[in-house]
Amino acid sequence: MNKNTYAVIMAGGIGSRFWPMSTAEHPKQFLDILGTGKTLIQQTVERFKKTVPAENILIVTNVQYKGLVLEQLPQLKEEQVLCEPARRNTAPCIAYAAYKIKKENPDAIMVVAPSDHLILDQAEFDRIIEIALKEAEQEQQLVTLGIKPSRPDTGYGYIQFVDDATSAIAEVKKVKTFTEKPILSIAKEFLASGDFYWNSGIFIWSAKSIISEIENQISDLAALFEEVYDSLSTENEAAKMANIYVQCPNISIDFGVMEKAKKVKVVLADFGWSDLGTWGSLYTHLNQDEHKNGIIGKKAFLYESSNCVVNLPNDKLAVIQGLNDYIIVESEGVLLICKKEDEQKIKQYLTDLKTRKILH
Amino acid sequence: MNKNTYAVIMAGGIGSRFWPMSTAEHPKQFLDILGTGKTLIQQTVERFKKTVPAENILIVTNVQYKGLVLEQLPQLKEEQVLCEPARRNTAPCIAYAAYKIKKENPDAIMVVAPSDHLILDQAEFDRIIEIALKEAEQEQQLVTLGIKPSRPDTGYGYIQFVDDATSAIAEVKKVKTFTEKPILSIAKEFLASGDFYWNSGIFIWSAKSIISEIENQISDLAALFEEVYDSLSTENEAAKMANIYVQCPNISIDFGVMEKAKKVKVVLADFGWSDLGTWGSLYTHLNQDEHKNGIIGKKAFLYESSNCVVNLPNDKLAVIQGLNDYIIVESEGVLLICKKEDEQKIKQYLTDLKTRKILH
Repeated sequence: MNKNTYAVIMAGGIGSRFWPMSTAEHPKQFLDILGTGKTLIQQTVERFKKTVPAENILIVTNVQYKGLVLEQLPQLKEEQVLCEPARRNTAPCIAYAAYKIKKENPDAIMVVAPSDHLILDQAEFDRIIEIALKEAEQEQQLVTLGIKPSRPDTGYGYIQFVDDATSAIAEVKKVKTFTEKPILSIAKEFLASGDFYWNSGIFIWSAKSIISEIENQISDLAALFEEVYDSLSTENEAAKMANIYVQCPNISIDFGVMEKAKKVKVVLADFGWSDLGTWGSLYTHLNQDEHKNGIIGKKAFLYESSNCVVNLPNDKLAVIQGLNDYIIVESEGVLLICKKEDEQKIKQYLTDLKTRKILH
Repeated sequence: MNKNTYAVIMAGGIGSRFWPMSTAEHPKQFLDILGTGKTLIQQTVERFKKTVPAENILIVTNVQYKGLVLEQLPQLKEEQVLCEPARRNTAPCIAYAAYKIKKENPDAIMVVAPSDHLILDQAEFDRIIEIALKEAEQEQQLVTLGIKPSRPDTGYGYIQFVDDATSAIAEVKKVKTFTEKPILSIAKEFLASGDFYWNSGIFIWSAKSIISEIENQISDLAALFEEVYDSLSTENEAAKMANIYVQCPNISIDFGVMEKAKKVKVVLADFGWSDLGTWGSLYTHLNQDEHKNGIIGKKAFLYESSNCVVNLPNDKLAVIQGLNDYIIVESEGVLLICKKEDEQKIKQYLTDLKTRKILH
């Protein structure tokens, strides 16, 4: 393992689409949402055991979740957990990690990854990461992983690519365009054309390259971090970060950097990826019974039901009859029953409950 | 109030149709199933406050529920609770009460009533009971209350009646036949004819009359109680009852006595009765929202749902979307979701869970 390789795991999200399992107090990345015995963030950290030295794994999370992170990942030292004092988007989060890493190791190459995704084929993931790390060694080079699309999903961003004359590796392509969530007809065309892959949100670059791009494209963000650079990894870090973080622009790395950067490559990947962004996507990864019900919960008994996603505590006895294509979830004593086709309304119900002061 | 008047409230049932609210440990009669603030047995006892002296109210229940009865009805003395040492049907239960009462007061007239029914019009109930008590003073006379049927329900027994020349009271009729749960076409004919009322399971008779009928028609049951008669209301009662009760025939008073008795009258009643025997019947007594959902549970929020019966603990937060004509119940942490039209299957699911050793 190369001691210059770092992993930056972004774990600040609140996962409201997975309510009531995922809550602001205990979001999705800290849950064993597939019932495997490990939480998503634990799985994510393990994913880097062959490619990143253990001491080079950093978690960036909201200060609120610091305790949860250290509890679930006791192998981490406290300084491996970077605490965001406010909720911002991915650009400030990545900038924070990049400046800290660059200060520690100017030759660092970083893999940036969300903490709440699923990857099934670990060996293939390792292989793709090694390819991407190699590409990222080039000056000013940004690299992203593209996922081979299996359906015209309108919930993902798409990356259009063209051949890269500078690389002999088949999986390495040059990025032509990034397209945000398309409408269905466009998504279908993307899929048919064969030169669009899903945007995985996994990035690989040197600390130098990404900082250089941030300086060029989000100069106010760069300025804030230059202001606190001397304090990073000192006893003053937390106070300084508290000062600047609220001033950081709420902007994603895709919009802030990737869409306008000149040297962007995509490594084409097919390693059994899911962002587990919806109950529907969770459903495809659950073991299903003979009626295509995906069930977590040892005492959930379904009768005359099909195509349901059931996620109940193991000690919860439930008899469920006559439901087709429903989500039935209980977490922390809160019950949700919802048609699968209407799961995008869950966020709205949550807002409604908050408005009515039922939830905070 | 006549000191010869007694009420015998039968409270030994296990109410499996109302699972999971009703369980063998805590059956329906001990639940506030309508969310009124009083359990069904508490309501039943209160129902006799104008017609029966408080000390003449007896509860017959399984020994398992003695504690529950005394807890919910602290005004009762321990000797007012008759404990059945085994589960039998209504004939042994009524015989037990009748022999005990006769020993205490040979002139007693008993009202026998289930502990888990609903009666809305208390004043009308009082009036009907007074009529029935008067009729029951006649020698060998058995009296039952008939309920004006509001629908061709196939879940009830029906009583066919003819005019009673001996009575000037319009509500008093002679019973012609008892019919057990009819098929729908017959139930419709019964309703159309106008001379069939529902069998309420509420009986009025003197202790002497019913004992005489038991002697004639279920002589083995009578023989068992004669054997222990001297011990009733003594310190030996419990031991003696434990001896004979397991030998008692498992037979209902309807089948064992009423269907063959010669002097049976029915008093026609219309006092807002329900046996609360099904979730459907409960539903008609719940306050409904604008989408005809009957909801118990202060934190149950329904969206795009109609005609549902929801019964959740008041502190249970639930979001329920896209359900029409369903039963959603949680009790003691056990969840049931079931189509209303399939509620008769609940018993079967319970049996299934017991077979699989999930429930005991």
